[in-house]
Amino acid sequence: MYDIVILGGGPAAITAAVYIGRKRLNALLLTKNIGGQVLETMSVENYLGYSFIEGPELIQKFDTQLREHPIDIKLGYRVTKVRQADEHFEVDTESGESFLSKVVLYTLGKRARRLGVPGEDRLVGRGVSYCAVCDGPLFAGQKVTIVGGGDSALEAAYDLIKMAEHVYLVSLTPFTADPVLVERVVGAPNLTTFVEHIAEEIEGGEFVEAIRIRDLKTGERKRLESKAVFVEIGLIPNSEPLKGLVTLNKWGEVPVNTCCETEIPGLYAAGDVTDIPEKQIIVACGEGAKAALQASKYLQKNK
Amino acid sequence: MYDIVILGGGPAAITAAVYIGRKRLNALLLTKNIGGQVLETMSVENYLGYSFIEGPELIQKFDTQLREHPIDIKLGYRVTKVRQADEHFEVDTESGESFLSKVVLYTLGKRARRLGVPGEDRLVGRGVSYCAVCDGPLFAGQKVTIVGGGDSALEAAYDLIKMAEHVYLVSLTPFTADPVLVERVVGAPNLTTFVEHIAEEIEGGEFVEAIRIRDLKTGERKRLESKAVFVEIGLIPNSEPLKGLVTLNKWGEVPVNTCCETEIPGLYAAGDVTDIPEKQIIVACGEGAKAALQASKYLQKNK
Repeated sequence: MYDIVILGGGPAAITAAVYIGRKRLNALLLTKNIGGQVLETMSVENYLGYSFIEGPELIQKFDTQLREHPIDIKLGYRVTKVRQADEHFEVDTESGESFLSKVVLYTLGKRARRLGVPGEDRLVGRGVSYCAVCDGPLFAGQKVTIVGGGDSALEAAYDLIKMAEHVYLVSLTPFTADPVLVERVVGAPNLTTFVEHIAEEIEGGEFVEAIRIRDLKTGERKRLESKAVFVEIGLIPNSEPLKGLVTLNKWGEVPVNTCCETEIPGLYAAGDVTDIPEKQIIVACGEGAKAALQASKYLQKNK
Repeated sequence: MYDIVILGGGPAAITAAVYIGRKRLNALLLTKNIGGQVLETMSVENYLGYSFIEGPELIQKFDTQLREHPIDIKLGYRVTKVRQADEHFEVDTESGESFLSKVVLYTLGKRARRLGVPGEDRLVGRGVSYCAVCDGPLFAGQKVTIVGGGDSALEAAYDLIKMAEHVYLVSLTPFTADPVLVERVVGAPNLTTFVEHIAEEIEGGEFVEAIRIRDLKTGERKRLESKAVFVEIGLIPNSEPLKGLVTLNKWGEVPVNTCCETEIPGLYAAGDVTDIPEKQIIVACGEGAKAALQASKYLQKNK
């Protein structure tokens, strides 16, 4: 029986683990990997303390700091269910192993949303990608399409115009990304933007060959030859293991208050999986620290 | 008329300024200095990304990052009043200059609480100090007293046992600091702790000579010879300029929700001055980022 189990391995989890480590509690960090979404982030320019750092390098620093603290770390685990039993929690994993803890800190983050168009599922890993940062370099010198209009889509465009022959950027709405991100890509000679266009189908035999889109205003259809389609249209919370235990909001996020408390005493949540606005590394770190300190006070009171 | 004025210069303000800078808004950072309380923090061990860094060095990195962004910075200003006028805010300063802005982000932090005992006011700067980190080295080789039992008192003890002849640590309650902080000072040969003791008077002519304390359980009184009394008993929010505009909580903190909104539309607050729990650099940074992004959305909606 642990005092506290931290579920997840992103910025919220790592920060929480460092704070919990300093409290000398009997703690476990249970995760698939260390880093979460940051591992797939090429450049980080808004983490205070580093004007510019690559995602994996920042995580390397976080990981080093984490290992200095007395906390069990179990990697390679996927959480399937969190249940409440008497005065404690039980965490089930895909491998069949379960873990008992007085307190759970849930930080499982988000994953990429799918387009839901014909051809998409069949061509995943064959040109359809949900991580331009990871897979972009595979398509250097080719024509590629990015679907999306937010920060991650525009960041992908910035990376890809430097390596692809041509980049098509297809957005359902006017761009919602930071103006600074829009400024530095719009006008690139090898970029064509299709704003207020919808993706209708991804075509290809063994590999992606093209994407079909439609102009939402005129109804006009186009076929864009592409070797890759990068889908950057948002994220889905990894909150399934909490279903039945916690009331999620309409986006599937875990509601928390300013103390990172959920509706269940002893169950804390932090980071992108919660309904806290702004999916940012520094915000997740701050929330992780708050959750850890609040959880530690809860344990002191309920000893 | 600015789009946004950020009041303060600590971690919340600097992070907010970096995020606002990326939004290309017409923004002003108005502050006494860059760094706030962190300038008086000797060692930081729980800011993710740096296993160990001195406070002023971390602020130096923050400052460098801040200056890369297009935002006006005015140093040496003390805010006296924030007022609402029609569709904007007016910020008054001690120098008589006022600034107009559509949105205000209030991050003025906290300041040290006083003991309120005879001799204290008269001997400030003559042995009475509210910053062991700043003034500790002045008393190397002497007998000194620290009043307090939380993190900052125990951190002060850790620093001072390495340089003072003898350290008295006087706490009204059992220690509330991180166990890791307590562990590494208790047992030091030149440390004497007085738990559940109250400070009653600070004695001295031109300079501090002693502190008088009383045992809360037995009523027994003691006089401890000390050349310095370091008062580390908590902090008071710098929320006076908001009085009359915002309803403060009973500790004088500014209530905010998870979006860093106050009860006044267009007025955001972040960091130690708010009622968000946990006074930590990384928490203040996270809150500053949230406040900036939320304020920027508010400006877009209300253009």
